[in-house]
Amino acid sequence: MDIESERELYGGLLQAIHKIENTPRFTRLIPEVRTNIVYCRPNETDPNKVAAIDGRITVINDKPKATGKPKIGCSDHMARALIEIKKHRPEITSGINLRYNKKTTKAIKKTLQTEIGEIDRTREPEPQKTGQKKSMPWKIQYLKNKYGEIPNIFYETPGYGKEPLYVLIGTDPLKITETAIEITKNHP
Amino acid sequence: MDIESERELYGGLLQAIHKIENTPRFTRLIPEVRTNIVYCRPNETDPNKVAAIDGRITVINDKPKATGKPKIGCSDHMARALIEIKKHRPEITSGINLRYNKKTTKAIKKTLQTEIGEIDRTREPEPQKTGQKKSMPWKIQYLKNKYGEIPNIFYETPGYGKEPLYVLIGTDPLKITETAIEITKNHP
Amino acid sequence: MDIESERELYGGLLQAIHKIENTPRFTRLIPEVRTNIVYCRPNETDPNKVAAIDGRITVINDKPKATGKPKIGCSDHMARALIEIKKHRPEITSGINLRYNKKTTKAIKKTLQTEIGEIDRTREPEPQKTGQKKSMPWKIQYLKNKYGEIPNIFYETPGYGKEPLYVLIGTDPLKITETAIEITKNHP
Amino acid sequence: MDIESERELYGGLLQAIHKIENTPRFTRLIPEVRTNIVYCRPNETDPNKVAAIDGRITVINDKPKATGKPKIGCSDHMARALIEIKKHRPEITSGINLRYNKKTTKAIKKTLQTEIGEIDRTREPEPQKTGQKKSMPWKIQYLKNKYGEIPNIFYETPGYGKEPLYVLIGTDPLKITETAIEITKNHP
Repeated sequence: MDIESERELYGGLLQAIHKIENTPRFTRLIPEVRTNIVYCRPNETDPNKVAAIDGRITVINDKPKATGKPKIGCSDHMARALIEIKKHRPEITSGINLRYNKKTTKAIKKTLQTEIGEIDRTREPEPQKTGQKKSMPWKIQYLKNKYGEIPNIFYETPGYGKEPLYVLIGTDPLKITETAIEITKNHP
Repeated sequence: MDIESERELYGGLLQAIHKIENTPRFTRLIPEVRTNIVYCRPNETDPNKVAAIDGRITVINDKPKATGKPKIGCSDHMARALIEIKKHRPEITSGINLRYNKKTTKAIKKTLQTEIGEIDRTREPEPQKTGQKKSMPWKIQYLKNKYGEIPNIFYETPGYGKEPLYVLIGTDPLKITETAIEITKNHP
Repeated sequence: MDIESERELYGGLLQAIHKIENTPRFTRLIPEVRTNIVYCRPNETDPNKVAAIDGRITVINDKPKATGKPKIGCSDHMARALIEIKKHRPEITSGINLRYNKKTTKAIKKTLQTEIGEIDRTREPEPQKTGQKKSMPWKIQYLKNKYGEIPNIFYETPGYGKEPLYVLIGTDPLKITETAIEITKNHP
Repeated sequence: MDIESERELYGGLLQAIHKIENTPRFTRLIPEVRTNIVYCRPNETDPNKVAAIDGRITVINDKPKATGKPKIGCSDHMARALIEIKKHRPEITSGINLRYNKKTTKAIKKTLQTEIGEIDRTREPEPQKTGQKKSMPWKIQYLKNKYGEIPNIFYETPGYGKEPLYVLIGTDPLKITETAIEITKNHP
């Protein structure tokens, strides 16, 4: 990757981390699997070239804390989701995953006017379920079919052995982080 | 808590962390919700006085890494499990959670002679399921009833929205960590 | 500061950190006071708006390790040096401090063709010595007078109670870091 | 080293770290070379078996922060000082280094009744000065000769290229840390 692109990815994620670490309330949005933020170049097609936070964002001393640094290729699930979403909405370059529960849903509805997408895992055909890598295209296509477009925020219904998660997407990692922080203000 | 007890808890967990961080293969045993180790005094009855690793053990740069320090009162689920187990087996003072999958099961069977306990979540009566705090006593009692005693290693079957996890318990945090490291050697 | 500028500063420093952390030999260049890297906008005049590594780069487990993240306004000495240097050489935007000893001097001479600047602290007039803030302009002016221009690399002779340090300056934090890494290859 | 001793060293240092990280004012006592705490077994004679904080205690986000974990054999200067002091005062097991300046001196005098030792570096004979390893026995013997016993707190006058430092010693790492924290309360 060229130096300027890498620098943009690193810098954008670091701005997002600073914002989150300065927002103690953000811990309410961190799921058991921890939060990650992904960010890629506008025309990226390779999940291994997506930048993310190495070690994810965890909770230390009751405050949100990025355990490692922004790095290329250190996310799996979220990076593949982003690349799949870009096939339908190429302007999207970044995403963040958040805790799913009733309080978060209420806070999102109070904060955003946008429709919340729902991936109903019970609708997934068996063959796709077997392999994680095949599952992602199905999920994103499901959203496309159901809503006409991939919504800016969506979640999967709880799966067997899988924590349900919200995913918020957008055109810039700092902007989606600021949106997430707005949501925390309406989170009881 | 008296200084000597706190020092023992901190020191024991730190020895465990050093062992794990020096074992890159250990990442195979780290679940999506990340690994934690809990350690308490022999007669502890309060989950808030159990020591654990603040921020859990995550994966950074493809290696296991404790994100924070050993601290009193920074674990919820694992601390309550430990205190509940102590009601049946007071000699137990420590526990560690590990990724559940077929490879881990195979590695455990190859490493340990001990029986593996299984908590079948589908057997849990509805009322307990509603509250997490009521669920733990049911689970531990279930193990007691089914196996006559709480096994040294057990797992819960995958729950709706819950990642399945192995829990390994013992009388010392360093010893159970060394057992976990033995398991990684048989992990493909 | 505007978002794009901040992102550039953060991203550039993070690239430098990744390079250094992947170079175990770099520990040879880390002084007792630890290494920092500063980076500012092309027209910066305010030391408080210079970006640096919060907590500096230290040695952990015998490897170089940035203890905190790139941040605006977390360097004092190096930030003031950079702003003072820019008065003479506005194209300079970044600097890194390195351990001073005979081995480093030898390695620098073997690596770079450039002249090494020397600030002879014994020449500093008494009044300047009293206040650190007045001392910096004197030092940089001293280099200007002695060499006609601020050299790309210079050091201060050991002071009374002050560790001597090399300072390497340039137009980009990644480039000066790569130069420092070249120097480590010639460091015995 | 046996498991129980290692656990004591780790646990004692971790208690000290928790205290310091919970005391933002402590940054006033952190010198340019950063603070370290050393702790060894009562009969230790080997500097390589002294425990210390890997990466030292630095300042991040204007607060004191241990960059790494307690570890055996990661200190050089302070570990050798401790072992040398033990030859005269075997009950001493721990030491911490602090910033030297007039404010610290005033705060120490206000906090402690104890005499402050001074090592006058100008008295050191040339041969010792050449090798750091030979210098330490001379310094400690100098204190013994001058004060009849090694004082609980002492400093070296600023050396050529060396930052002056206070060293506070005692029988337990938590106790000396609590003393240092008392000193910060009298630090303007």
